[in-house]
Amino acid sequence: MSLDRGKVFAYIDQNLPEHVAKLQELVRQPSISPENKGVKDCANLVLRYFKELGCRASLVETSGNPVVYGKYDAGADKTIVVYMMYDTMPVDEPGWRVDPLSAALVENPPFKRCLVARGAYNTKGELRGFLNACESIKATSHELPVNLIFVAEGEEELGSRHLPEFFANHHRELQEADAVFFPFCSEDRHGKVLMPLGVKGIVFFELELDGGSWGRGPREFAIHGSNKAWVDSPTLRMVQALSTMTSPDGNRVLIKDFYENVKVPTAEDLELVAKLEETFDPTSQMEEMRVDRFVGDTRGVEALKRYLFDPTLNIDGMWSGYLGPETKTLLPHKITVKMDVRLVPNMKTEDIVPMVRKHLDEKGFREVQIRVLEAGYGWARTSYKSPIAKALAKSYLEMGKEPEIWPTLAGSAPFAWFSQEPLNLPFVFGGLGHGALAHSPNEYVVIDEGGPTGGLASMEKSYVAIIENLSRMQG
Amino acid sequence: MSLDRGKVFAYIDQNLPEHVAKLQELVRQPSISPENKGVKDCANLVLRYFKELGCRASLVETSGNPVVYGKYDAGADKTIVVYMMYDTMPVDEPGWRVDPLSAALVENPPFKRCLVARGAYNTKGELRGFLNACESIKATSHELPVNLIFVAEGEEELGSRHLPEFFANHHRELQEADAVFFPFCSEDRHGKVLMPLGVKGIVFFELELDGGSWGRGPREFAIHGSNKAWVDSPTLRMVQALSTMTSPDGNRVLIKDFYENVKVPTAEDLELVAKLEETFDPTSQMEEMRVDRFVGDTRGVEALKRYLFDPTLNIDGMWSGYLGPETKTLLPHKITVKMDVRLVPNMKTEDIVPMVRKHLDEKGFREVQIRVLEAGYGWARTSYKSPIAKALAKSYLEMGKEPEIWPTLAGSAPFAWFSQEPLNLPFVFGGLGHGALAHSPNEYVVIDEGGPTGGLASMEKSYVAIIENLSRMQG
Repeated sequence: MSLDRGKVFAYIDQNLPEHVAKLQELVRQPSISPENKGVKDCANLVLRYFKELGCRASLVETSGNPVVYGKYDAGADKTIVVYMMYDTMPVDEPGWRVDPLSAALVENPPFKRCLVARGAYNTKGELRGFLNACESIKATSHELPVNLIFVAEGEEELGSRHLPEFFANHHRELQEADAVFFPFCSEDRHGKVLMPLGVKGIVFFELELDGGSWGRGPREFAIHGSNKAWVDSPTLRMVQALSTMTSPDGNRVLIKDFYENVKVPTAEDLELVAKLEETFDPTSQMEEMRVDRFVGDTRGVEALKRYLFDPTLNIDGMWSGYLGPETKTLLPHKITVKMDVRLVPNMKTEDIVPMVRKHLDEKGFREVQIRVLEAGYGWARTSYKSPIAKALAKSYLEMGKEPEIWPTLAGSAPFAWFSQEPLNLPFVFGGLGHGALAHSPNEYVVIDEGGPTGGLASMEKSYVAIIENLSRMQG
Repeated sequence: MSLDRGKVFAYIDQNLPEHVAKLQELVRQPSISPENKGVKDCANLVLRYFKELGCRASLVETSGNPVVYGKYDAGADKTIVVYMMYDTMPVDEPGWRVDPLSAALVENPPFKRCLVARGAYNTKGELRGFLNACESIKATSHELPVNLIFVAEGEEELGSRHLPEFFANHHRELQEADAVFFPFCSEDRHGKVLMPLGVKGIVFFELELDGGSWGRGPREFAIHGSNKAWVDSPTLRMVQALSTMTSPDGNRVLIKDFYENVKVPTAEDLELVAKLEETFDPTSQMEEMRVDRFVGDTRGVEALKRYLFDPTLNIDGMWSGYLGPETKTLLPHKITVKMDVRLVPNMKTEDIVPMVRKHLDEKGFREVQIRVLEAGYGWARTSYKSPIAKALAKSYLEMGKEPEIWPTLAGSAPFAWFSQEPLNLPFVFGGLGHGALAHSPNEYVVIDEGGPTGGLASMEKSYVAIIENLSRMQG
């Protein structure tokens, strides 16, 4: 039996102010996992949401933040795991034009009202939007067409580091599911739907050098800068170590074997790239990122291929010595560099840190310490020919949107733990609507319709379509 | 007529608690010039001190912080300019065991009570100690044996950037002086008196690279780290630029012509080094700095020669991207590097920034911006054969201490503006007592006698001897 989408969609439109208010409530509850701020309170809020929907729900404790686990039994044939994250990045960036936790609704041309807040797009907007969609189906059609297993984790921004503990204890229940869905909003600034079918893997680590572990330079604290004449500088030494890791433009990784296992683009990737040649236009991304040029002055699909298929070594942050105004002449005793590596098929997470260690050792930088922040997780891919990808594409088409299929995002999410052995669950992520500036100031998700993209109502309606198409998925 | 030093010294001993209290008052008044915190209030406090001594005194405004200017007319033949600084570094360092502005008196083995505070050693201890010495002479001998011109500046830690304005307006008065003295305390941890006869010059600048000025990378804010695959990283690029500036150990500067004008050691330097071979022991410095080894595994006088004669390029601080706990995957839009160069004879301050610019350009880093924080000032030297150096050495000998003469400090102070054209005033700096950890946490000056070094009373008594010997200086 089909949903009466007209009725559901009308319900969404009629109840939108309430849906927006619920989303505002969620973003006002901080859940900044890197700073452990508000995370547990947010878990309880999401728990309440799951119960309100009618789930059997509980907080599943891990060694880190709890997973909010909810089972919604619709008595349906199919069961979909809905992966979600309830944590966000910090709000330390300068440049916010509103309080990032106040859930401000702001005109944001060319869009109409947007929710400008940390987590608005990444990904509380989608979390609450999906629940709004489910509630709207229930309010109008009495029952969902599919059983749902919600797995909302509170450590996505920490590399999902304790999610494996959850998997170990819930293997059997997850194994009975048919597929995994991650609610996301996928319209670009111009309203084009991007449909990425995978994610890159990720490994986080810090490089650190201090005088104590090096045996050179100040052991315990920064000393007067004039002593550079006779005392080694861990800072200058680290600069040398880092400089060996990339080409002079910073874009080619010079760590031995870094690219050894790279097996992309695959034949299927090339099929998709051939189609992208016709439709891809980077304008939307360049506007969003405030970027004028791509690496190596690549353009169009050549640039996109770098985005899709290049593994990366990136410095997320680094600091040493005096960070204040004016001058303080110091010989710092320590330098810290936060790095991440993004992996593409068929790179293996467990290879990365040993590879970096070996590189540093061979280049003579044995003294540089590697602190692994996160063992990380692998890349994951879904074939565009798979039933689940077809179900997602069909949903977009039903909503009047032709998706532009990308083989993958350059970003990361822990889908590998669902898609690989032992669960082998197919996954997709997506939905209508538009947001941007994840991890940046003025992160937003579009609320109102009427601009170049869909708003919250479009997002929720697309989830309705996706839920129904996933419930009918063959295979 | 000679001072009755016995009487003066007894007065110092009897009034020491009050002298300590006055020093505590001074360090409790913040005067953090890099953060513009309390500077003006401290200037007024020093102004009051000068007036209490009997000076005609005023604040001389500059484009920056005022110079506290005081003229003490003793009706004497000789006039000494007393250079002082009333500003300090920030207190941002972790690791302070007391509030750095509370003027705590703390047992600090192997010393007895020390004043542990920002500015205690660098150089409020000496400023107040010198005034205590002058007051003690006046209280016991009615008059000072020499006229004094106090020049207390509030921007030493900013590279004395507006002191030239003061000089321009007070040239005539300064020209009538016979010499310049900077009260300092010069005992090492073991109580050996070091007598450096010069300072290095200094130039401060920041290197900065951002996507906006580069035309590559994010222009306005840090973006999601996954975009490294197709967007350039100013951070990785700056690492490459910095890496070209030194040898792999960070100790040899590879900027063309950096060493071109280095004309040290001079013949006189070598005479002093020959004497240092017999007495120099770096243990005290290594203990203070918490350093196990010197650059290039040099030892003893070989290490000291690096300290004395090497110009340096140093990173005082650097930062880019996320500086918080855990992880935030970012492609930062900007990296800032605070650097200083220390100059030895006969390097010229005005050569440095053009040299760095040329280096960056030639290596292909035209996009790296140089922001000059401080035009800086030159090195300065006093001959050990000069009357003023002899007067200082004589003072130490009279106090029972054989000084170990060093050709220079590696640190910097703006003596060049006194010692070079047009003023051509000879200068020295020194005094007994011990302090350490300038610019580091737990900066201290020793207050009590009875440890391996002199305390505040020794410092003040040595200033009495120095004042008298400078008043009798020939030539």
